[in-house]
Amino acid sequence: MLIHSASQLLTLAGGPQRGHDLGKLGIIEKGAVVVRDEKIVAVGTTDELKNAYPDEPTLDAGNCVLMPGFVDPHTHLIWAGDRANEFSMKMGGMAYLDILAAGGGIISTVKATRTASMESLIAQTRPRLLRMFSHGTTTAEAKTGYGLQTATELRLLKALLALDDESPVDIVPTFLGAHAIAPEYKDNPQGYTDEVNNTMLPMLKEWWETHAPRLPLPFVDVFCENKAFDLEQSRQVLSKAKSLGFPLKIHADEFDNLGGASLAVELGAASADHLVKTSDADIAALGKSETVAVSLPCTPFGLAECQYTPARKLIEADAIFALATDCNPGTTWNESMQFVIALACRTMKLTPAEAIAATTINSAYAIRRADTIGSVEVGKQADMLILSVPDYRQLGYRYGTNLVKQVIKRGRVYSVDVGYYRTA
Amino acid sequence: MLIHSASQLLTLAGGPQRGHDLGKLGIIEKGAVVVRDEKIVAVGTTDELKNAYPDEPTLDAGNCVLMPGFVDPHTHLIWAGDRANEFSMKMGGMAYLDILAAGGGIISTVKATRTASMESLIAQTRPRLLRMFSHGTTTAEAKTGYGLQTATELRLLKALLALDDESPVDIVPTFLGAHAIAPEYKDNPQGYTDEVNNTMLPMLKEWWETHAPRLPLPFVDVFCENKAFDLEQSRQVLSKAKSLGFPLKIHADEFDNLGGASLAVELGAASADHLVKTSDADIAALGKSETVAVSLPCTPFGLAECQYTPARKLIEADAIFALATDCNPGTTWNESMQFVIALACRTMKLTPAEAIAATTINSAYAIRRADTIGSVEVGKQADMLILSVPDYRQLGYRYGTNLVKQVIKRGRVYSVDVGYYRTA
Repeated sequence: MLIHSASQLLTLAGGPQRGHDLGKLGIIEKGAVVVRDEKIVAVGTTDELKNAYPDEPTLDAGNCVLMPGFVDPHTHLIWAGDRANEFSMKMGGMAYLDILAAGGGIISTVKATRTASMESLIAQTRPRLLRMFSHGTTTAEAKTGYGLQTATELRLLKALLALDDESPVDIVPTFLGAHAIAPEYKDNPQGYTDEVNNTMLPMLKEWWETHAPRLPLPFVDVFCENKAFDLEQSRQVLSKAKSLGFPLKIHADEFDNLGGASLAVELGAASADHLVKTSDADIAALGKSETVAVSLPCTPFGLAECQYTPARKLIEADAIFALATDCNPGTTWNESMQFVIALACRTMKLTPAEAIAATTINSAYAIRRADTIGSVEVGKQADMLILSVPDYRQLGYRYGTNLVKQVIKRGRVYSVDVGYYRTA
Repeated sequence: MLIHSASQLLTLAGGPQRGHDLGKLGIIEKGAVVVRDEKIVAVGTTDELKNAYPDEPTLDAGNCVLMPGFVDPHTHLIWAGDRANEFSMKMGGMAYLDILAAGGGIISTVKATRTASMESLIAQTRPRLLRMFSHGTTTAEAKTGYGLQTATELRLLKALLALDDESPVDIVPTFLGAHAIAPEYKDNPQGYTDEVNNTMLPMLKEWWETHAPRLPLPFVDVFCENKAFDLEQSRQVLSKAKSLGFPLKIHADEFDNLGGASLAVELGAASADHLVKTSDADIAALGKSETVAVSLPCTPFGLAECQYTPARKLIEADAIFALATDCNPGTTWNESMQFVIALACRTMKLTPAEAIAATTINSAYAIRRADTIGSVEVGKQADMLILSVPDYRQLGYRYGTNLVKQVIKRGRVYSVDVGYYRTA
């Protein structure tokens, strides 16, 4: 298939973009792409490729933007229930401790998730995944972490593998047994840390080798914060996971600076995520490292907080900077990477070009998939978007609605409906 | 038609909601509505209405929320071109004066609009209007104001009337010839004010009586700000308009507090809009008045500014508080009232219930249409939404995507597509 007549083809060619290279879109005007067998086999101008592939079936991009599919590198995609009531109470002025006393907080989601069947978990998660896809996300990382007990955590993984199978979105799973201290270990965080290290991680390794032997091992992630896992406990979890061969991620500096980002760099983690209260020393550690700095601006936005990731400092320090939704039921239920771009531009002073690189090639690198996705280059998986607009700068500038017109996933074309029709 | 089995029917019955009454949703669980001839003829529980109307054709709300359509009381719906490039330059750190020098700012939209044909204006505006509708806006105010010369301003009005005719959205037009000082009067704001008062407004009156004699007169609005129309010039415009019988609106306190809100109250304007830098004296004037305080939180959001309308102070002062998109090409291109709700909750500490009242019954009152729209009450126009969720509090809590499943406009049912389908 020859996709032609893109007003702007954003190739994002050339690997993750570090520091001041962020935002190099590699634009080809009147661009075109040839796709065969789920892969990109040629990239060029419409004139070039129409000459080189005269008999190829065609898809007209209609003088709109053609670009890589969004890669969302940090989501808590799978959970049961919602916390809309809690949000309403919070906006009404209720204090966090009173909300907890009224049954709110992460533990309410843990309770709902533990009691949900596999079928119910899949049914509740499916609409979120489809919303992601229709807003342009072609690959999403997805974490467990609302089980906090071995059986439920493995059930969540199994559900994620099933959703990966049934949906066009590729799901990259992460094991986040260390998301919070399980209620059974309420006053004994070290006890739960030991449970994660001595029971969960070895069982995870065994389970994975039995159930998904052909897939790469999932990431292992830890929530390094006060009232969750301190720096030493985070080190224990990540070191154990590393010794078992798992690739690593970390939640760091959402509320307090404990040094998690430097730990991530030290252990060679794929990414350190959140990074709001990050110290200059941690920023320096991330700079020049291969650990991607993943910012989640929807989280402070969702919580109505004012402080965001010091993105420009990270870029100055030569870090590889990426963006993600953090979609979750407590702090930010938003599936759209387009909104992340709009928010990142405004709150962290990124240009649309920088935000696009941070949601495609760099976010692919944050889940260590930049060899196959995140850019429009020969040999890569044919994961692309056709927008409804002719200029990439409309991403960020416009917000609140969906600018994706068609999603191309592994070479298959899906049309996104943003219209309406009269039915009665 | 009997619409039944709504998990929550939000009636918003009982007129505009002032001060602490804001947020009274009038919820009927397992609610139902009977619609005939474009109007609501019965409101009650599903059991009641199924008994009373046994032979009525039915529409199952599927255990989801049924509520009034959104009324967006402040939009600059019609313009030509875009300013995506300007946004990109601004996020890249370029100063406002340099952007002006590079051809940006409102005058660039005025130039594009003046040279656009009627057909082009309609073609460029149509997708915005349809986006509004598919996100649940059933009535939208729409301002002229990118002409700043009589012929173009009247062409914009004519285009708005044509769009009103062709689209399911009801458009309530506003004449905003006094949007900015026309470039021809660059150093002579009083000269342009005189032109508006002595030429434009009388011609508008005559034009309207010829072209739309059966419709109520449009609103007349003025941009009361430094570098636009000062308080005295704003008074001149609104007084002249009032003497000609036009209902009034004002843009006040977006950047500076000039006293426009008190002027609006004094002249009996339907609303005072923006209200960011509003003084305590102006807040007190709005309180207890019939002039609705319309907040436009997307504008500071769009501009990446931190100060929002002092909503809680206005509510404390017993004002009638409403919300709008302010959709425009310069500061905020967002068509979705759902996003306005999500933003208002977080930035102005409204509950979802308060924000829903501010986007339905109170925003209807801001355009003086609360007698026919804005609530689900017997005798009102059948403008309603069926959401895809069972609890109204998911509005605000969730954001970035579209939670509207069906729009009912004058009793006709439109299904909104938020899915996708494989086409190749």
